[in-house]
Amino acid sequence: MLSIAIDVMGGDHGPREILKGIELALQKKTFKPVLFGKSDIINQYLKEFPKTSQCCEIVHCDSIVDAHTKPSIAFRYGRSSNLGKAIQSVADGITQAVISSGNTGAYMALCKSILKTLPGISRPAIPAIIPTCGESGKILVLDLGANIECTPTHLVQFAAMANILVKHLWNIENPTVGILNVGTEEMKGNIVVQETFKLLKEMKDINTHGFVEGSDILYETTNIVVTDGFTGNIALKAIEGTAQFIGQTIKAEFSRTLLDKLRYLFARKTFNRIKSKIDPRIYNGALFLGLNHLAVKSHGSADAFSFSHAIYSTITMIERDLTPKIAKSLENIYIP
Amino acid sequence: MLSIAIDVMGGDHGPREILKGIELALQKKTFKPVLFGKSDIINQYLKEFPKTSQCCEIVHCDSIVDAHTKPSIAFRYGRSSNLGKAIQSVADGITQAVISSGNTGAYMALCKSILKTLPGISRPAIPAIIPTCGESGKILVLDLGANIECTPTHLVQFAAMANILVKHLWNIENPTVGILNVGTEEMKGNIVVQETFKLLKEMKDINTHGFVEGSDILYETTNIVVTDGFTGNIALKAIEGTAQFIGQTIKAEFSRTLLDKLRYLFARKTFNRIKSKIDPRIYNGALFLGLNHLAVKSHGSADAFSFSHAIYSTITMIERDLTPKIAKSLENIYIP
Repeated sequence: MLSIAIDVMGGDHGPREILKGIELALQKKTFKPVLFGKSDIINQYLKEFPKTSQCCEIVHCDSIVDAHTKPSIAFRYGRSSNLGKAIQSVADGITQAVISSGNTGAYMALCKSILKTLPGISRPAIPAIIPTCGESGKILVLDLGANIECTPTHLVQFAAMANILVKHLWNIENPTVGILNVGTEEMKGNIVVQETFKLLKEMKDINTHGFVEGSDILYETTNIVVTDGFTGNIALKAIEGTAQFIGQTIKAEFSRTLLDKLRYLFARKTFNRIKSKIDPRIYNGALFLGLNHLAVKSHGSADAFSFSHAIYSTITMIERDLTPKIAKSLENIYIP
Repeated sequence: MLSIAIDVMGGDHGPREILKGIELALQKKTFKPVLFGKSDIINQYLKEFPKTSQCCEIVHCDSIVDAHTKPSIAFRYGRSSNLGKAIQSVADGITQAVISSGNTGAYMALCKSILKTLPGISRPAIPAIIPTCGESGKILVLDLGANIECTPTHLVQFAAMANILVKHLWNIENPTVGILNVGTEEMKGNIVVQETFKLLKEMKDINTHGFVEGSDILYETTNIVVTDGFTGNIALKAIEGTAQFIGQTIKAEFSRTLLDKLRYLFARKTFNRIKSKIDPRIYNGALFLGLNHLAVKSHGSADAFSFSHAIYSTITMIERDLTPKIAKSLENIYIP
């Protein structure tokens, strides 16, 4: 049976929400959750979740990595923490993957130190999966911020790894790859994107679409968008912020007067349909790309429903044997 | 009386929409519109707009800069075009400002060539004004894409110019300036933003807030956000794309069945209130920052209502004598 190491202490909503997510996932999938955290806290909540109680294993940890732990501190002292032990269990082959909703920087630092990166990868990339209105309903954008400065070779590596991920995780045969830029015309942009385009065009395994703009992301012009971690982070937070801003404005205006509330009530079913259409929660769970083992990052604000989806996607990635496939995709890329 | 040079041929909706915008503006403000374009086309529509007919002047131009004109071509051959002549009229003091909804690259190239940049400015910046849910209801983000690669000195210049603009145009006494970054913590980001932060902190005329994230823009954490044209272009298009995407999704879902349509009808008044709250049209009209004269860029997709707002903001900028004030703000900045 599959074993998954789960950091129970990470995330904005605390251990109970994570356990609830595991319970939800166990209703649909069979796996053994290995829970890393403070055992007294875990046991306190566990009685609410019978399926989890029945099949889980608890690994007690005294030291906990929290939201304020600096990556450098985690890197140096974090191996005995909940997160360090969870990651170690994957390296030791006790579990097949690790999932955490916690501190991204610390998690990444520990993954690099314990799981090690694939040959030629200096720092793994973090992809984001965003709901779109396109055919597949989602798009993979990377890097989300792990690599602030990127060379064209980095971006080509991101494209190659993302290509395998999308192919095997979403069953898209020949995914298209776009490079984020200020315009779609070939002469646009800086030297890095220009050079990346040239390199990608020469790779026959990658279906290069060319340049895409910030507004193309949600319209799913391509299946994959590559960009450096600086621009990627800002673009993705801009998208998230805009969606939140509009959502809040709608909510505020529809609860202003009694009549507004009545209008909302009458329109509620349509609103619910819209919400479920652009719900990012079902795409929660992004693989750290470029490691020797599977480490999955769940969104810090993930609720139980969202966390269960991170588990489903992790199980699919284990079953489809993604890591060796990604490693192979990198073999053909020249690394300076 | 104020004279404003207006490119009637630019923009996605054609001359009639521009003329309609001028007519709208003339109902509220007194100015003389000097219209640059093909006189037969202008005259064909002018009879619909009595106020404009009464006070406008038409400058016929055989050569027209359109959406496909490359900036380099405009730069070399565009002086006799509608856009070139309109800009020249400002340089000659015949008009006090020029407005165009047309080809941004060509417009900028001609402005640089004819109006010349302020001392020390190599390329002017293009700001964008975005509606927010904050106190002032709007935020100024620059650069929108005129400067793909920026040094810290460029970003400091942008901040200084934007500071004057916001102070005098929006009557905000001591506007706050944020630097767009991947996080708000001081150690985050690349060398350019790190260095910019250090320089801005030392300037006593500028109220530096520090770093802001992509999600902070619409929450108006600061009055001004500075960033290079690469990131700025992508972030702003991401925001625009997301707003459009959500708008379209809402529209599609509320017109799916008869019941959905009924729900929309019942909720229409609240929807209209929301639309007007986040309507970007009233903030149309961005000054090219760093030129010796006033050149205003209206959004390419501006309709008449939106164009009239570009005119209002141009009039305010003329009345408040912005150009010399901006020039003065640059005197105190070290330019390497």
